[in-house]
Amino acid sequence: MTHHALVRPARLAVAVSLSAALAATGATADDGLGNYRDRFEPLPHLPPIPAENSLTKEKVELGNMLFFEPRISSSGVISCATCHNPALGWSDRIPRATGHDGQIGERNTPTVLNSGFLGAQFWDGREPDLEGQALGPIQADIEMAMDLEVALERLDRFAIYQEKFAEAFPNDENPINEQNLAMAIASFERTLNTPNSPFDRYLRGDLDALNQQEKDGMVAFVDNGCIACHRGPAFTDSHFYAIQVPGSKDVGRFDVTGDEADMYKFRTPTLRNVGVTYPYMNNGATETLEEAVAIMGREMLNREFDDATIADITAFLHTLTGEMPDFEVPALP
Amino acid sequence: MTHHALVRPARLAVAVSLSAALAATGATADDGLGNYRDRFEPLPHLPPIPAENSLTKEKVELGNMLFFEPRISSSGVISCATCHNPALGWSDRIPRATGHDGQIGERNTPTVLNSGFLGAQFWDGREPDLEGQALGPIQADIEMAMDLEVALERLDRFAIYQEKFAEAFPNDENPINEQNLAMAIASFERTLNTPNSPFDRYLRGDLDALNQQEKDGMVAFVDNGCIACHRGPAFTDSHFYAIQVPGSKDVGRFDVTGDEADMYKFRTPTLRNVGVTYPYMNNGATETLEEAVAIMGREMLNREFDDATIADITAFLHTLTGEMPDFEVPALP
Repeated sequence: MTHHALVRPARLAVAVSLSAALAATGATADDGLGNYRDRFEPLPHLPPIPAENSLTKEKVELGNMLFFEPRISSSGVISCATCHNPALGWSDRIPRATGHDGQIGERNTPTVLNSGFLGAQFWDGREPDLEGQALGPIQADIEMAMDLEVALERLDRFAIYQEKFAEAFPNDENPINEQNLAMAIASFERTLNTPNSPFDRYLRGDLDALNQQEKDGMVAFVDNGCIACHRGPAFTDSHFYAIQVPGSKDVGRFDVTGDEADMYKFRTPTLRNVGVTYPYMNNGATETLEEAVAIMGREMLNREFDDATIADITAFLHTLTGEMPDFEVPALP
Repeated sequence: MTHHALVRPARLAVAVSLSAALAATGATADDGLGNYRDRFEPLPHLPPIPAENSLTKEKVELGNMLFFEPRISSSGVISCATCHNPALGWSDRIPRATGHDGQIGERNTPTVLNSGFLGAQFWDGREPDLEGQALGPIQADIEMAMDLEVALERLDRFAIYQEKFAEAFPNDENPINEQNLAMAIASFERTLNTPNSPFDRYLRGDLDALNQQEKDGMVAFVDNGCIACHRGPAFTDSHFYAIQVPGSKDVGRFDVTGDEADMYKFRTPTLRNVGVTYPYMNNGATETLEEAVAIMGREMLNREFDDATIADITAFLHTLTGEMPDFEVPALP
């Protein structure tokens, strides 16, 4: 079980920049691991922004409202923030998502944090981007169970949503529509990033940001091949690999493509903030990070990690927990 | 339907104090309504604090965590904040509370805002104080459906809760217990107050804080007798009155006392923030404030208000919306 202190959402940017600046003066001696550091990339403050959905403050503000808006669920009490709960690492910390009428889905809720960096959305990659993702859970029978037309009608009853959609999409005659709903939510989600983790500070030159065990874990992570799939700024290649974790019968990407070659395949999950987004695996059946590391070694790398290696890699993974994004709970109409 | 702009939680205290100070210089001429103003009391920043549960920052911080903690529900996804949603006036804006497995209760969710000022909790007053109230919804089958012992065991698994309970209740050997759970949540709730509404500023001497229609509404509110029950700082006497609103068969306080005299009786609800805590009445069947005013005139005062009077009283009631409390969504373990 992972424990961490009550933290206030962000506001640490100044302090962190200062320590990064100090580190950049080169006060710390080299630790001889430059060839390992070169394999990684720090997390940018923003993910790539698609040309067809420019990131504007009007869309982000509207998306923030919609993300917390339970009236776009048929029960009127479930919002995006119910399962992507900002108090719980923007996920839900239960094995499998629980939605409309208490129905329990087949898969573990992925965090929204840094999801703009993913090359495919959902465990099975059935949507390429956040715009495509956003409308899925609203309509899914076991999640928000809502007809999109009804959702849009409900929003249209509020003058404030008429205003905010018009401001966010000034060229549209009827801005309250499916596409704009998706674009606004996706825009808000693209602001939910967690830069300046200890590991990012380390990559940027603060060589004291990781202790020796965490550095040993980084070395083991590279040398054992974890980095083959968990690479890039979000620690995922966004590709699909077959894996059947204990207790799972989920066929994964096969459901999307119908291609036998995709049987049991799932998209590599991000490891950013993995220390605060337990439980793990597509079915959420793995409670601890140590267990998850052991399973991945066994299933994906055909290795039995010894306890010391598991402890080192786990310590390293905890350094990927960044600053939680600043946000406001909106006052909804 | 009530509409209002997206507002950031509070941070207006300085600006408001300034305008109050300016008003206090007496720049505004008297409006001749001093004898009406004298019938009201502005909302204090804090409600009465019970001697047996002193308000400490440690209890408030712990209570803040627990208020947003879904692991004290049996599904693991429902917290106090689900129905008492800070985005929705700390209520849910649906007719009747929807809880565990989508079950719908018999009554409308009362707001937590200013609930420390109430002399009795729940629509039927079955608990005298917030400490008694706090444990009810956690255990109710149709709300969080949780066994308290299991809830406490879950909390006890997190080192951070062991620490925070010990800090909040330093004299207890085993601080993670029912009583302290209730005391912490109640302490947090006592901080959720909404001072400095336009009407409070008006009462404190800023005679321009209400426009003429709102002042006419105040006069009508007094002259028609609404103030007989809706009085004191929270606009409630916390007494019980028989009422059967359209569509309700709820016997109210009779269920608590078994006394025939309590049949259909409900506690006078607060009118603070009534503009943002729709829908109305014990069964939530009344959508607009205008309708609610008309029903109350008819049922409680035996009067048919004309449209102008309804409009005036409604305008007045909207001036009871105060500054939403500052709070942080906690980072839970």
